[in-house]
Amino acid sequence: MYAPLEPHGGRLVYNVVEDRDRAASMSAGLTKVEIEPTYGPDGAPIRNPYREIMTITYGFVSPIEGFMTRNDVDSILRERRYRGWLFPFPLIYDIDEETVKSLGLKEGDSVLLTLKGKPLAVMNIEEIYKLGDRKELADAVFGTPERNGEVVKKRFDEKHPGWLMYRMMRPMALAGKLTLVNPPKFKEPYARFWMPPHVSREYIKSRGWKIVVAHQTRNVPHIGHEMLMKRAMFVAGAERPADAVFVNAIIGAKRPGDYVDEAILEGHEALNKAGYFHANRHVVTMTLWDMRYGNPLESLFHAVIRQNLGVTHHMFGRDHAATGDYYDPYATQYLWTRGLPSYGIEAPPYQVDKGVKVRPVNLGEFAYCPKCGEYTYLGMAYGDYKEPPLCGHPPERVSGSFLRGVIIEGLRPPKVVMRPEVYDVIVKWWKVYGYPYVTDRYLKIKEQELEVEL
Amino acid sequence: MYAPLEPHGGRLVYNVVEDRDRAASMSAGLTKVEIEPTYGPDGAPIRNPYREIMTITYGFVSPIEGFMTRNDVDSILRERRYRGWLFPFPLIYDIDEETVKSLGLKEGDSVLLTLKGKPLAVMNIEEIYKLGDRKELADAVFGTPERNGEVVKKRFDEKHPGWLMYRMMRPMALAGKLTLVNPPKFKEPYARFWMPPHVSREYIKSRGWKIVVAHQTRNVPHIGHEMLMKRAMFVAGAERPADAVFVNAIIGAKRPGDYVDEAILEGHEALNKAGYFHANRHVVTMTLWDMRYGNPLESLFHAVIRQNLGVTHHMFGRDHAATGDYYDPYATQYLWTRGLPSYGIEAPPYQVDKGVKVRPVNLGEFAYCPKCGEYTYLGMAYGDYKEPPLCGHPPERVSGSFLRGVIIEGLRPPKVVMRPEVYDVIVKWWKVYGYPYVTDRYLKIKEQELEVEL
Repeated sequence: MYAPLEPHGGRLVYNVVEDRDRAASMSAGLTKVEIEPTYGPDGAPIRNPYREIMTITYGFVSPIEGFMTRNDVDSILRERRYRGWLFPFPLIYDIDEETVKSLGLKEGDSVLLTLKGKPLAVMNIEEIYKLGDRKELADAVFGTPERNGEVVKKRFDEKHPGWLMYRMMRPMALAGKLTLVNPPKFKEPYARFWMPPHVSREYIKSRGWKIVVAHQTRNVPHIGHEMLMKRAMFVAGAERPADAVFVNAIIGAKRPGDYVDEAILEGHEALNKAGYFHANRHVVTMTLWDMRYGNPLESLFHAVIRQNLGVTHHMFGRDHAATGDYYDPYATQYLWTRGLPSYGIEAPPYQVDKGVKVRPVNLGEFAYCPKCGEYTYLGMAYGDYKEPPLCGHPPERVSGSFLRGVIIEGLRPPKVVMRPEVYDVIVKWWKVYGYPYVTDRYLKIKEQELEVEL
Repeated sequence: MYAPLEPHGGRLVYNVVEDRDRAASMSAGLTKVEIEPTYGPDGAPIRNPYREIMTITYGFVSPIEGFMTRNDVDSILRERRYRGWLFPFPLIYDIDEETVKSLGLKEGDSVLLTLKGKPLAVMNIEEIYKLGDRKELADAVFGTPERNGEVVKKRFDEKHPGWLMYRMMRPMALAGKLTLVNPPKFKEPYARFWMPPHVSREYIKSRGWKIVVAHQTRNVPHIGHEMLMKRAMFVAGAERPADAVFVNAIIGAKRPGDYVDEAILEGHEALNKAGYFHANRHVVTMTLWDMRYGNPLESLFHAVIRQNLGVTHHMFGRDHAATGDYYDPYATQYLWTRGLPSYGIEAPPYQVDKGVKVRPVNLGEFAYCPKCGEYTYLGMAYGDYKEPPLCGHPPERVSGSFLRGVIIEGLRPPKVVMRPEVYDVIVKWWKVYGYPYVTDRYLKIKEQELEVEL
């Protein structure tokens, strides 16, 4: 009944050369191009393309095999399709005009992309082109209230990290197929969460899972998140509960105030280790990606990578992959029930030709109801759809900033808000980095050290 | 996406004459046949066919319009089909040979069926036939370990109330279409829960519900039942939670130790009144039926009546409509995932031609997990299918007999076991009947007074 879904585009990309000799001969004599982060207006790194290179070559975004051409970018911005297949974001290798000139880069060349001076990947340059006005590019990527009024409520600006990534890109771009010639080694604790699509698909098969629901996270799990996952398992199954939750953390550029990546991964793992999920119904994995905060667009990205990872369903909650109030809080649910016609997506992504096959689990918020004695479901509302809450009592909402305050004060959060085993993980990494949340110091360390060693 | 399902058989039966003059002219001059209960070996009533007459004429079992002919019964026992449409049980109006003779009943006659001497329904006698060996009939209805080994684990006997109903039937049967000519008035508290299919379908429509999951009950709701209902709402929705739970209590023959019918109805209602379910996501209704305890067969009966009532989904838990260990505890889940080939049902009921259209929600048990702080899901197992529990902790199971002991001792059950508002309903009816559960005295009152007045 639930056969594993085929990869997006039909074939799983795996452009990784593990053979050292072959990698060396592929790289020999190539011009080296050092991978450079995108920087914000204050000079802080807000994106590192090495993560996209890893994500592309390991097949997370199959069928995409490299950075996009101008035509590819235009097609994405016109109808959110990459060579026919639904895909939300332009993947652009941006570069300075001076670098192109000084290195004498030409279309048809192959170059060796290096990370902190060490070989990472070979790119066969298919096209070198100018990006034009990056503010217009950024607006086109995310939408505007005028053009995309069904979900965009406010004009994007520099406070939006995703918009800023495109806004701050260098003026030119290299497009072309990528081959990873020096697969990096993941540092602890990342290594055990790194499960690229070909591994993940085998893992799911070996567990006998037929219905697997993906959970997107960039948070240490509060009990509200746990309950969202547990309820989503029931929704995904249709006739019985899903077999498992596939937690997939987005590891990449951070902002001050975020939870640190190490605590996010180990916090979710703690739910499994401490038995809040049965070990055979839950797994924690990661994807390298500098989050665009594109709400409905990001949800489509999530569906693509997780279909490639082998899941059958994807849960989407309120403000999915959002920041600020640019999008409607249920813009993602809008996409997955109606499509986004103003972006060229005429129907839900699983109903369109060459769309994704992952099925959505659309949910509103959960909050603790002291009268019911459990997390209750608060319902959701978008467009003309309005769902009442599950119970008739006033819920006890715990705001994120309240919880943040509790944690910063060094207090153990209330038992109904966070599992003690998860809090212990926060404390563990607090001791390492001197603060429970991301600080400027953490950002500097993270950019210098990255998640990998070459 | 979720259009209301059509009635079973395509057309909703409504053989009820509300016009008093027309009813009088239909009944005038007809031979009166007093409806007689089926009695157990100890002389206690175990079934009253008036309930089946109500259930048939109001269309709960559409397309069935009357008691069955010998051919109908043979077809049910051969392949669980009534004139082509899936249906699990023979509906038989049994009668003594002496009564047939003394009243001079003949095929082609119409008779007036009376309840406690008062007119209830007209039957057009299509056939008068002998039932033969009722022990063989009872075995054929429920199955035997030899013939139906996929789900029947033990030979049925007189301790099984459903088997006993067929075993104790009178030797002859009248078959024919029924018309209710004197719609009874329901007593309190039944009246407000009586919502026959044509009313129920309008009610669901007026609420705007698209996905509605039926809950079968013959119990005052423990919190375990409430959690089963709440989780089933999530399963039924597939892409979002269901709109509502449609509680449908089976009101009919009771056994000592059962909860009293009044407490069952008002107990479920209390969950709604006290806000454990939002008023627009939950409704409590009833069906008149002397339960057969036929586990998978009863689940098919439930699906038929609730499809006619207008739901889209039906939840099935462990030991659905079961008593004793005659059937496998997950025999119902077996039917709804694989069919019951030995009964002539080759695939799940919604996959066969002229099957039911209601979709199943198959669930195992729930029990309180003190570590998770919520009711956790324990999984299910049948055939070669085995589902692990949701969490990895040992749950705190509260046995029914422990809870019964607590209640009989006059103690308020623990908060994690029963809502106080539900317990208050038990106490209310305890005061009326002198005991919290069904006693011989309650059975006598119930048989004398029934749920209706004529």
